[in-house]
Amino acid sequence: MKHTEQRLRGETKFHGTIIDVVHDTVLLENGREALREVARHHGAVGIFAMDGGNVVLVRQFRYPIGRELLEIPAGKLEKGEEPYSAALRELREETGGLADKLEYLGAYYGSAGFCDEKLDLYFARLDSTGAADPDEDEFLTVERYPLADFEAMIARGEIADGKTLSAYTLARAAGRI
Amino acid sequence: MKHTEQRLRGETKFHGTIIDVVHDTVLLENGREALREVARHHGAVGIFAMDGGNVVLVRQFRYPIGRELLEIPAGKLEKGEEPYSAALRELREETGGLADKLEYLGAYYGSAGFCDEKLDLYFARLDSTGAADPDEDEFLTVERYPLADFEAMIARGEIADGKTLSAYTLARAAGRI
Repeated sequence: MKHTEQRLRGETKFHGTIIDVVHDTVLLENGREALREVARHHGAVGIFAMDGGNVVLVRQFRYPIGRELLEIPAGKLEKGEEPYSAALRELREETGGLADKLEYLGAYYGSAGFCDEKLDLYFARLDSTGAADPDEDEFLTVERYPLADFEAMIARGEIADGKTLSAYTLARAAGRI
Repeated sequence: MKHTEQRLRGETKFHGTIIDVVHDTVLLENGREALREVARHHGAVGIFAMDGGNVVLVRQFRYPIGRELLEIPAGKLEKGEEPYSAALRELREETGGLADKLEYLGAYYGSAGFCDEKLDLYFARLDSTGAADPDEDEFLTVERYPLADFEAMIARGEIADGKTLSAYTLARAAGRI
Protein backbone atom coordinates (compact mmCIF):
# COMPACT_ATOMS: atom_id res chain seq x y z
CA MET A 1 0.00 0.00 0.00
CA LYS A 2 1.26 3.46 -0.81
CA HIS A 3 1.27 5.89 2.08
CA THR A 4 -0.37 9.25 1.51
CA GLU A 5 -1.76 12.32 3.26
CA GLN A 6 -4.44 14.53 1.75
CA ARG A 7 -4.51 18.29 2.22
CA LEU A 8 -7.82 19.51 3.64
CA ARG A 9 -7.07 23.19 4.25
CA GLY A 10 -4.25 25.46 5.22
CA GLU A 11 -2.88 28.92 5.57
CA THR A 12 0.37 30.76 5.10
CA LYS A 13 1.74 31.72 8.50
CA PHE A 14 4.94 33.47 7.42
CA HIS A 15 6.25 35.15 4.26
CA GLY A 16 10.03 35.37 4.20
CA THR A 17 12.87 36.17 1.85
CA ILE A 18 13.94 32.53 1.38
CA ILE A 19 11.06 30.51 2.79
CA ASP A 20 7.37 30.79 3.46
CA VAL A 21 5.84 28.66 6.21
CA VAL A 22 2.40 27.12 5.84
CA HIS A 23 0.24 25.25 8.32
CA ASP A 24 -1.81 22.64 6.49
CA THR A 25 -4.38 20.32 7.99
CA VAL A 26 -4.15 16.90 6.38
CA LEU A 27 -6.20 13.73 6.40
CA LEU A 28 -4.17 10.76 7.62
CA GLU A 29 -4.48 7.12 6.60
CA ASN A 30 -6.41 6.36 9.78
CA GLY A 31 -9.06 8.99 9.03
CA ARG A 32 -7.76 11.43 11.61
CA GLU A 33 -6.57 14.96 10.95
CA ALA A 34 -3.10 16.31 11.68
CA LEU A 35 -1.24 19.60 11.35
CA ARG A 36 1.71 19.74 8.97
CA GLU A 37 4.10 22.67 9.25
CA VAL A 38 5.90 23.12 5.94
CA ALA A 39 8.68 25.48 4.94
CA ARG A 40 8.23 26.32 1.24
CA HIS A 41 11.40 26.97 -0.76
CA HIS A 42 11.90 27.71 -4.48
CA GLY A 43 14.46 24.97 -5.01
CA ALA A 44 18.17 24.89 -5.67
CA VAL A 45 20.97 23.17 -7.56
CA GLY A 46 24.40 21.74 -6.77
CA ILE A 47 27.26 20.64 -9.02
CA PHE A 48 29.88 17.96 -8.37
CA ALA A 49 32.62 19.33 -10.65
CA MET A 50 35.91 17.69 -11.56
CA ASP A 51 38.74 19.91 -12.85
CA GLY A 52 41.06 17.27 -14.23
CA GLY A 53 41.57 14.93 -11.26
CA ASN A 54 40.49 17.51 -8.69
CA VAL A 55 37.14 18.01 -6.99
CA VAL A 56 36.11 21.69 -7.06
CA LEU A 57 34.72 22.88 -3.72
CA VAL A 58 33.81 26.17 -2.07
CA ARG A 59 34.43 27.07 1.55
CA GLN A 60 32.03 29.55 3.10
CA PHE A 61 30.70 30.68 6.44
CA ARG A 62 27.20 29.37 7.01
CA TYR A 63 25.58 31.83 9.37
CA PRO A 64 22.70 29.56 10.49
CA ILE A 65 25.13 27.00 11.95
CA GLY A 66 27.89 29.45 12.92
CA ARG A 67 30.71 27.65 11.12
CA GLU A 68 32.38 27.20 7.77
CA LEU A 69 31.41 24.33 5.51
CA LEU A 70 33.28 22.89 2.56
CA GLU A 71 30.66 22.30 -0.11
CA ILE A 72 30.09 21.68 -3.78
CA PRO A 73 29.14 24.83 -5.73
CA ALA A 74 25.41 25.37 -5.29
CA GLY A 75 22.71 27.99 -5.16
CA LYS A 76 19.06 28.81 -5.18
CA LEU A 77 16.99 28.95 -8.34
CA GLU A 78 16.25 32.48 -9.47
CA LYS A 79 12.64 33.30 -10.30
CA GLY A 80 11.55 31.31 -13.36
CA GLU A 81 14.99 29.78 -13.84
CA GLU A 82 15.47 26.18 -15.00
CA PRO A 83 17.72 23.98 -12.81
CA TYR A 84 20.11 23.14 -15.66
CA SER A 85 20.77 26.82 -16.46
CA ALA A 86 21.04 27.64 -12.78
CA ALA A 87 23.67 24.94 -12.31
CA LEU A 88 25.81 26.30 -15.16
CA ARG A 89 25.39 29.83 -13.75
CA GLU A 90 26.28 28.90 -10.16
CA LEU A 91 29.29 26.89 -11.28
CA ARG A 92 30.58 29.89 -13.23
CA GLU A 93 29.73 32.54 -10.63
CA GLU A 94 31.08 30.69 -7.60
CA THR A 95 34.16 29.03 -9.10
CA GLY A 96 34.73 30.45 -12.59
CA GLY A 97 34.30 26.92 -13.89
CA LEU A 98 33.01 26.46 -17.41
CA ALA A 99 31.54 23.21 -18.68
CA ASP A 100 30.21 22.26 -22.10
CA LYS A 101 27.46 20.16 -20.57
CA LEU A 102 26.18 18.83 -17.28
CA GLU A 103 24.97 15.32 -16.47
CA TYR A 104 22.00 14.95 -14.15
CA LEU A 105 22.80 12.95 -11.03
CA GLY A 106 19.48 13.07 -9.22
CA ALA A 107 17.26 14.92 -6.78
CA TYR A 108 18.26 15.66 -3.21
CA TYR A 109 15.84 16.39 -0.40
CA GLY A 110 17.75 17.71 2.61
CA SER A 111 14.96 17.86 5.21
CA ALA A 112 11.80 16.46 3.65
CA GLY A 113 10.07 16.12 7.01
CA PHE A 114 9.30 19.83 7.19
CA CYS A 115 10.76 21.48 4.07
CA ASP A 116 9.93 21.07 0.38
CA GLU A 117 13.34 22.22 -0.87
CA LYS A 118 14.39 20.09 -3.84
CA LEU A 119 17.97 20.39 -4.94
CA ASP A 120 18.87 19.05 -8.39
CA LEU A 121 22.38 17.62 -8.50
CA TYR A 122 24.61 17.62 -11.59
CA PHE A 123 28.03 16.33 -12.57
CA ALA A 124 30.45 18.46 -14.61
CA ARG A 125 33.88 18.04 -16.11
CA LEU A 126 35.34 21.52 -16.45
CA ASP A 127 36.57 22.59 -19.88
CA SER A 128 38.24 25.71 -18.55
CA THR A 129 38.18 28.13 -15.68
CA GLY A 130 37.53 31.84 -15.99
CA ALA A 131 37.07 34.45 -13.30
CA ALA A 132 34.66 33.76 -10.47
CA ASP A 133 31.88 36.32 -10.03
CA PRO A 134 30.14 35.72 -6.70
CA ASP A 135 27.22 37.81 -5.44
CA GLU A 136 28.46 40.96 -3.73
CA ASP A 137 27.37 39.71 -0.30
CA GLU A 138 28.81 36.22 -0.84
CA PHE A 139 32.30 35.45 0.50
CA LEU A 140 33.78 32.13 -0.44
CA THR A 141 37.08 30.48 -1.21
CA VAL A 142 37.43 28.00 -4.06
CA GLU A 143 39.46 24.91 -3.13
CA ARG A 144 40.50 21.95 -5.30
CA TYR A 145 41.36 18.52 -3.91
CA PRO A 146 42.49 15.32 -5.63
CA LEU A 147 39.64 12.81 -5.43
CA ALA A 148 41.57 10.52 -3.04
CA ASP A 149 42.23 13.45 -0.70
CA PHE A 150 38.55 14.42 -0.79
CA GLU A 151 37.59 10.83 0.08
CA ALA A 152 40.05 10.90 3.00
CA MET A 153 38.41 14.13 4.18
CA ILE A 154 35.03 12.38 4.14
CA ALA A 155 36.49 9.53 6.21
CA ARG A 156 37.88 12.04 8.72
CA GLY A 157 34.45 13.66 9.11
CA GLU A 158 35.49 16.94 7.50
CA ILE A 159 32.57 17.02 5.05
CA ALA A 160 29.31 17.68 6.90
CA ASP A 161 27.31 19.22 4.08
CA GLY A 162 24.50 16.92 3.01
CA LYS A 163 24.32 17.87 -0.67
CA THR A 164 28.10 17.42 -0.99
CA LEU A 165 28.08 13.92 0.54
CA SER A 166 25.02 13.04 -1.55
CA ALA A 167 26.43 14.35 -4.84
CA TYR A 168 29.65 12.39 -4.27
CA THR A 169 27.59 9.26 -3.56
CA LEU A 170 25.50 9.70 -6.71
CA ALA A 171 28.50 10.55 -8.93
CA ARG A 172 30.30 7.45 -7.71
CA ALA A 173 27.21 5.25 -8.17
CA ALA A 174 26.87 6.59 -11.73
CA GLY A 175 30.48 5.65 -12.49
CA ARG A 176 31.53 9.27 -13.11
CA ILE A 177 34.34 9.19 -10.54
CA MET B 1 41.56 33.63 6.17
CA LYS B 2 38.52 32.21 7.87
CA HIS B 3 35.20 33.53 6.66
CA THR B 4 32.79 34.81 9.28
CA GLU B 5 29.67 36.90 9.81
CA GLN B 6 28.89 38.66 13.06
CA ARG B 7 25.36 39.01 14.42
CA LEU B 8 24.43 42.64 15.11
CA ARG B 9 20.76 42.32 16.01
CA GLY B 10 17.72 40.25 15.16
CA GLU B 11 14.19 39.27 15.92
CA THR B 12 12.03 36.20 15.84
CA LYS B 13 9.51 36.52 13.01
CA PHE B 14 7.69 33.23 13.39
CA HIS B 15 7.15 30.66 16.17
CA GLY B 16 6.14 27.27 14.82
CA THR B 17 5.73 23.69 15.92
CA ILE B 18 8.93 22.46 14.24
CA ILE B 19 10.80 25.62 13.35
CA ASP B 20 11.10 29.23 14.40
CA VAL B 21 12.23 31.80 11.84
CA VAL B 22 14.53 34.66 12.80
CA HIS B 23 15.69 37.67 10.81
CA ASP B 24 19.20 38.61 11.91
CA THR B 25 21.23 41.55 10.67
CA VAL B 26 24.88 40.54 10.31
CA LEU B 27 28.14 42.33 9.68
CA LEU B 28 29.85 41.00 6.56
CA GLU B 29 33.58 40.74 5.85
CA ASN B 30 33.41 43.87 3.72
CA GLY B 31 31.93 45.95 6.55
CA ARG B 32 28.47 46.00 5.07
CA GLU B 33 25.33 44.71 6.74
CA ALA B 34 23.07 41.99 5.40
CA LEU B 35 19.86 40.24 6.42
CA ARG B 36 20.03 36.53 7.22
CA GLU B 37 16.77 34.59 7.38
CA VAL B 38 17.29 31.51 9.52
CA ALA B 39 14.96 28.62 10.29
CA ARG B 40 15.78 27.35 13.80
CA HIS B 41 15.29 23.64 14.45
CA HIS B 42 15.98 21.53 17.56
CA GLY B 43 18.09 18.95 15.72
CA ALA B 44 17.60 15.35 14.74
CA VAL B 45 19.25 11.96 14.39
CA GLY B 46 19.46 9.23 11.75
CA ILE B 47 20.70 5.63 11.95
CA PHE B 48 22.25 3.53 9.21
CA ALA B 49 21.32 0.10 10.56
CA MET B 50 22.41 -3.30 9.28
CA ASP B 51 20.30 -6.34 10.17
CA GLY B 52 22.71 -9.09 9.20
CA GLY B 53 23.52 -8.27 5.55
CA ASN B 54 20.44 -6.10 5.09
CA VAL B 55 20.06 -2.32 5.26
CA VAL B 56 17.03 -1.35 7.36
CA LEU B 57 14.96 1.44 5.77
CA VAL B 58 11.59 3.06 6.28
CA ARG B 59 9.22 4.15 3.55
CA GLN B 60 6.92 7.04 4.38
CA PHE B 61 4.91 9.76 2.73
CA ARG B 62 6.61 13.13 3.09
CA TYR B 63 3.84 15.68 2.92
CA PRO B 64 6.07 18.70 2.15
CA ILE B 65 7.21 17.13 -1.13
CA GLY B 66 4.04 15.16 -1.88
CA ARG B 67 5.75 11.81 -2.38
CA GLU B 68 7.11 8.80 -0.56
CA LEU B 69 10.77 8.57 0.34
CA LEU B 70 12.81 5.54 1.31
CA GLU B 71 14.98 6.66 4.22
CA ILE B 72 17.11 5.50 7.10
CA PRO B 73 15.26 5.54 10.44
CA ALA B 74 15.42 9.09 11.82
CA GLY B 75 13.64 11.60 13.94
CA LYS B 76 13.71 14.87 15.78
CA LEU B 77 15.28 15.28 19.19
CA GLU B 78 12.74 15.52 21.96
CA LYS B 79 13.11 18.37 24.42
CA GLY B 80 16.33 17.95 26.41
CA GLU B 81 17.13 14.64 24.74
CA GLU B 82 20.70 13.59 23.87
CA PRO B 83 21.31 12.52 20.24
CA TYR B 84 22.63 9.07 21.21
CA SER B 85 19.53 8.22 23.26
CA ALA B 86 17.30 9.67 20.55
CA ALA B 87 18.94 7.46 17.93
CA LEU B 88 18.36 4.30 19.99
CA ARG B 89 14.76 5.39 20.60
CA GLU B 90 13.99 6.19 16.95
CA LEU B 91 15.56 2.94 15.76
CA ARG B 92 13.35 0.99 18.17
CA GLU B 93 10.14 2.98 17.62
CA GLU B 94 10.33 3.11 13.83
CA THR B 95 11.71 -0.37 13.08
CA GLY B 96 11.67 -2.41 16.30
CA GLY B 97 15.44 -2.70 15.91
CA LEU B 98 17.51 -3.15 19.06
CA ALA B 99 21.24 -2.48 19.17
CA ASP B 100 23.71 -2.87 22.01
CA LYS B 101 25.58 0.25 20.94
CA LEU B 102 25.79 2.85 18.19
CA GLU B 103 28.86 4.20 16.45
CA TYR B 104 28.95 7.90 15.58
CA LEU B 105 29.32 8.54 11.85
CA GLY B 106 29.24 12.33 11.76
CA ALA B 107 27.13 15.44 11.50
CA TYR B 108 24.85 16.20 8.57
CA TYR B 109 23.60 19.65 7.63
CA GLY B 110 20.82 19.33 5.08
CA SER B 111 20.27 23.00 4.16
CA ALA B 112 22.85 25.08 6.02
CA GLY B 113 22.19 28.13 3.85
CA PHE B 114 18.99 28.96 5.69
CA CYS B 115 18.41 26.29 8.37
CA ASP B 116 20.43 25.35 11.45
CA GLU B 117 19.15 21.78 11.62
CA LYS B 118 21.99 19.45 12.62
CA LEU B 119 21.36 15.77 12.21
CA ASP B 120 23.72 13.37 14.01
CA LEU B 121 24.26 10.16 12.09
CA TYR B 122 24.98 6.78 13.70
CA PHE B 123 25.77 3.25 12.56
CA ALA B 124 24.12 0.24 14.20
CA ARG B 125 24.32 -3.52 13.88
CA LEU B 126 21.03 -4.89 15.13
CA ASP B 127 21.15 -7.51 17.87
CA SER B 128 17.49 -8.33 17.56
CA THR B 129 14.20 -6.92 16.38
CA GLY B 130 11.17 -6.41 18.55
CA ALA B 131 7.86 -4.74 17.75
CA ALA B 132 7.92 -1.32 16.11
CA ASP B 133 6.07 1.40 18.00
CA PRO B 134 5.68 4.44 15.74
CA ASP B 135 3.97 7.66 16.83
CA GLU B 136 0.22 7.38 16.41
CA ASP B 137 0.22 9.87 13.50
CA GLU B 138 3.24 8.28 11.80
CA PHE B 139 2.64 5.75 9.02
CA LEU B 140 5.63 3.94 7.69
CA THR B 141 6.69 0.61 6.26
CA VAL B 142 9.94 -1.03 7.30
CA GLU B 143 11.87 -2.50 4.35
CA ARG B 144 15.13 -4.48 4.35
CA TYR B 145 17.46 -4.71 1.36
CA PRO B 146 20.76 -6.57 0.86
CA LEU B 147 23.54 -3.98 0.69
CA ALA B 148 24.24 -4.66 -3.01
CA ASP B 149 20.54 -4.14 -3.84
CA PHE B 150 20.52 -0.89 -1.88
CA GLU B 151 23.58 0.29 -3.82
CA ALA B 152 21.84 -0.59 -7.09
CA MET B 153 18.84 1.49 -5.94
CA ILE B 154 21.17 4.46 -5.36
CA ALA B 155 22.58 4.02 -8.88
CA ARG B 156 19.05 3.95 -10.32
CA GLY B 157 18.19 7.22 -8.56
CA GLU B 158 15.67 5.64 -6.20
CA ILE B 159 17.19 7.16 -3.05
CA ALA B 160 16.61 10.93 -2.96
CA ASP B 161 16.82 11.47 0.78
CA GLY B 162 19.94 13.42 1.69
CA LYS B 163 20.58 11.94 5.13
CA THR B 164 20.26 8.42 3.70
CA LEU B 165 22.78 9.03 0.89
CA SER B 166 25.10 10.77 3.34
CA ALA B 167 24.89 8.10 6.05
CA TYR B 168 25.65 5.40 3.49
CA THR B 169 28.78 7.22 2.33
CA LEU B 170 29.96 7.93 5.88
CA ALA B 171 29.40 4.29 6.91
CA ARG B 172 31.33 3.15 3.85
CA ALA B 173 34.17 5.65 4.45
CA ALA B 174 34.40 4.42 8.05
CA GLY B 175 34.75 0.82 6.84
CA ARG B 176 31.50 -0.30 8.50
CA ILE B 177 29.97 -1.65 5.28
